[in-house]
Amino acid sequence: MSEICYLDNAATTKSAPQVVERMVKSFQQDYFNPSAMYKPGLNEEKAIQACKAQLMAAIHAKGDADRRIIYTSGGSEGDNLLIRGVLDRKRPSALENGSIVTTIIEHPAVREVFSDYEKRGVKVIWLPVDEAGFVDPQDLSEVVDEHTLLVSIMGVNNELGTFQPLETLGKIIKDHNPDCFFHSDFVQGFMKCPIDVEKAQLDGVTLCGHKINGPKGIGAVYLREGWPIKPLVFGGGQEHGLRSGTENVQGIVGFDEAVKLWESHDVIKRLVQYRRYVENTLMDTLENVKILGPQDEEKRSPAVMSVAIEGVRGEVLLHACEAKGVYISTGSACSTHKKEKHQVQKAIGLSPSYIEGTIRISFSALTTFDEVKQGVEIIIGEAQQLRKFAKFIK
Amino acid sequence: MSEICYLDNAATTKSAPQVVERMVKSFQQDYFNPSAMYKPGLNEEKAIQACKAQLMAAIHAKGDADRRIIYTSGGSEGDNLLIRGVLDRKRPSALENGSIVTTIIEHPAVREVFSDYEKRGVKVIWLPVDEAGFVDPQDLSEVVDEHTLLVSIMGVNNELGTFQPLETLGKIIKDHNPDCFFHSDFVQGFMKCPIDVEKAQLDGVTLCGHKINGPKGIGAVYLREGWPIKPLVFGGGQEHGLRSGTENVQGIVGFDEAVKLWESHDVIKRLVQYRRYVENTLMDTLENVKILGPQDEEKRSPAVMSVAIEGVRGEVLLHACEAKGVYISTGSACSTHKKEKHQVQKAIGLSPSYIEGTIRISFSALTTFDEVKQGVEIIIGEAQQLRKFAKFIK
Repeated sequence: MSEICYLDNAATTKSAPQVVERMVKSFQQDYFNPSAMYKPGLNEEKAIQACKAQLMAAIHAKGDADRRIIYTSGGSEGDNLLIRGVLDRKRPSALENGSIVTTIIEHPAVREVFSDYEKRGVKVIWLPVDEAGFVDPQDLSEVVDEHTLLVSIMGVNNELGTFQPLETLGKIIKDHNPDCFFHSDFVQGFMKCPIDVEKAQLDGVTLCGHKINGPKGIGAVYLREGWPIKPLVFGGGQEHGLRSGTENVQGIVGFDEAVKLWESHDVIKRLVQYRRYVENTLMDTLENVKILGPQDEEKRSPAVMSVAIEGVRGEVLLHACEAKGVYISTGSACSTHKKEKHQVQKAIGLSPSYIEGTIRISFSALTTFDEVKQGVEIIIGEAQQLRKFAKFIK
Repeated sequence: MSEICYLDNAATTKSAPQVVERMVKSFQQDYFNPSAMYKPGLNEEKAIQACKAQLMAAIHAKGDADRRIIYTSGGSEGDNLLIRGVLDRKRPSALENGSIVTTIIEHPAVREVFSDYEKRGVKVIWLPVDEAGFVDPQDLSEVVDEHTLLVSIMGVNNELGTFQPLETLGKIIKDHNPDCFFHSDFVQGFMKCPIDVEKAQLDGVTLCGHKINGPKGIGAVYLREGWPIKPLVFGGGQEHGLRSGTENVQGIVGFDEAVKLWESHDVIKRLVQYRRYVENTLMDTLENVKILGPQDEEKRSPAVMSVAIEGVRGEVLLHACEAKGVYISTGSACSTHKKEKHQVQKAIGLSPSYIEGTIRISFSALTTFDEVKQGVEIIIGEAQQLRKFAKFIK
């Protein structure tokens, strides 16, 4: 029996032992400043370049890894750096006459940036999604034209697990306007769903370490050659002037080790099984339950799923499970600070009686089948209890 | 005998064993997302608040620590967040008619931000410094008026160690214009020189972890109540909306442990002795040597010193020392990527024959006297060798 069942890995993951081990070694040996002129400093720089090369390979990107990958402090900074970086280089007239496009189910790090531009008078087109969370390619096709400056579409949704067909979307965007910047927040998709930035014609992609058993405080963006961006952080000129500040060497190697972990093991196969198990067990045991997001396994992440249980309040279920050592969420952790709740569930047209009963269950490479089995058992037991109480109150 | 003598701690420090230990424990136990709704998440949030309270105490700040301290990815982000955050909230007319003030010896993270505003038409006043690196209070008094929007003065210079009289400067600024934002990059001063943000009337202060044996990738800013700033990173609303992104919990507790280390031991006393020893030994042994910066111990940092050795090229001396395991620098690591060299030495009016021969020696709480002794011996030996060669070539 697991002491706790941590099933909120879409919020953040535990860093893997090998990640921590590599970081500790680096803390002890590789503490030099990569900008220093002596050899140990240059060695740090080389180590960083090797980590960048691995990230490039993981997203099937071509080109000079050292220039195409920029390390950040995480996903939020990455989204901001790419979107604001591109738009803040535009002339005022381009912003006045242009438009930017995104979806109604983005992470706040994208949504809030778009809202800021909207407030400043830039035309924002918010694309709807269908009941599984997909953007309609036809919708995209109708809104992208020669005035479209940037399109940002989350590769994998952080609640539904919906994996957008990035290659189809990229083709539509570039066919309509080759000069439009195509960005994807791929924080929830990285290492969980395949991505090929060349085939998808992506110009910018946001990645992050702590969603894949890497450390918090480290992320990266891919930026296609030929796109000048305005930095968020000016200074010493690190990252070829695009993101100043002493490189977080230990975070970078920890992130690198996390990528290796997700590459080397049968992680994905296991997670697919976990997700199937949870889905089947819930559907077989509880009535009036909906598994949100796509049904097709190829079109969703194996690491995250949202489940709507009618007649139960998600928040109450969360705390009932917590009392038994099972940690789940009702949605994105990054929305806790926000007033708007259940944006994604509303976007897919879920009925109010189900919306309130939504919980999110998510896995990482460290999740064991025991945790999943025990966790689901407790979730079901608590949901049944809560439904009984609800009937009693009626 | 030390295997290596690491005397470039102003570039970055090795994380202390207790810092790494605390981070490892946190990696293993405290991996939850502080925004999560269950108790372990709330515990992370409380842990962060305790770390913030310690930072507040260390800079003698009053008020609600949770709102006054904002964690960042490091010093560069902190400088950018405060300066750009304040100025980007100003109306265009205020920027057009106003001015901003800084010195000619700032870190690039301040200098480049000012240069960016200067390019955009904002009036920038660059204050000169005297031969010890001090701003003349009279100069400041003459330039601050009701149109001054912001003044940024580095508390401790990263090459000279010059410790500006912040209380005197703060009084001048606020006497002339109470609505002017007073910022100090205190990255090199934190825990090395005393600071009282209330007495100095500072509105914003930049701090950083990796200069005090904490981890890279973590920093913090203090922001006085009543100053709205525009965030650099929009998103989930962490840090009361001023800096979105999942908190770097392990970085934060590592930074906290580093502060404790510098507080608890006789660190400063030791560093003062190291600096004296280096100064005396160099002056006694080598001719035509200048110790740059202030002579008065109260007016300089004990952790960093620049030494100009006539007739020697700093870069050559650096590599000669490196070959013997002694690591020093010729100046700021963050200037390696920049074209402008020796800005600080030029600013204090050092003659060209000395400028080229400048090296920087810097200590941390982990520096041992053995390292210092052995390091200085090798620096002197190599400098004498290089001078011999130079004569031979003549």
